[in-house]
Amino acid sequence: MAEKSASLTEVADEQQIRDLMDDWRRLTAEGNVDGLLSLLTDDVVFLTPGNPPMTKQDFAKGFREVSAKAQIKAIQDVKEIRASGDMATTWSHLTVVLTPKGGGQTSEASGYVLTVFQRSPAGKWLLARDANLVAGAGNPDRV
Amino acid sequence: MAEKSASLTEVADEQQIRDLMDDWRRLTAEGNVDGLLSLLTDDVVFLTPGNPPMTKQDFAKGFREVSAKAQIKAIQDVKEIRASGDMATTWSHLTVVLTPKGGGQTSEASGYVLTVFQRSPAGKWLLARDANLVAGAGNPDRV
Repeated sequence: MAEKSASLTEVADEQQIRDLMDDWRRLTAEGNVDGLLSLLTDDVVFLTPGNPPMTKQDFAKGFREVSAKAQIKAIQDVKEIRASGDMATTWSHLTVVLTPKGGGQTSEASGYVLTVFQRSPAGKWLLARDANLVAGAGNPDRV
Repeated sequence: MAEKSASLTEVADEQQIRDLMDDWRRLTAEGNVDGLLSLLTDDVVFLTPGNPPMTKQDFAKGFREVSAKAQIKAIQDVKEIRASGDMATTWSHLTVVLTPKGGGQTSEASGYVLTVFQRSPAGKWLLARDANLVAGAGNPDRV
């Protein structure tokens, strides 16, 4: 019985992670930086190619710079979600499409992403660690 | 008491993960592919820049190709180890130094790595998911 109960908990956790990722893509398309920040742990770390690790503040600054210039659309093919205890992990193939708001050519980049989520003391899942292999990730000057 | 006990378990888990990473670097320097494979889950996934996801077999093939040509030295600055339930995660700054066995110039590349470990049913921690942002990771032709 204990084992079955744990398994059901994990299924519920995985659904909550899936919902969080859906929210993330919607808030990204809306350019809603405050909404995105509410889905991150305060000590979140983003690892991107060729850049130092990015903090929550770095993410907010970078997202504001990109979303001021472009509409951001993320197409995410979630390959796996696993949860255990207060930790969960996912990996996905991600395509990011940037459409300049002032007109001009749409750009597209894609690659894989490995993400770690943590359950907060209040019981809410939050994005905690993220390694993004999409070329240009973490660089607001790509728009 | 329950909380303190869990915390001690997590400390022990984190030490086991640290030992596993020490073993990984030693076996890498020795070119011991079978030893390395024994530290991986059968369904391990390696994500590297610009390549499709690599399986355990892909890893073995790539490692054999590189280690036939060069001595591989990995210098790892472990920034964090966290464990919860049967899952653990780490991130590190990694420098990989390749010294060609037939002589020639040493090459060096560095970047960040995010890794997920899982506890096997037998209780042994194994490397399960890995995103490696080191340029050239996953490409045996870089030697």
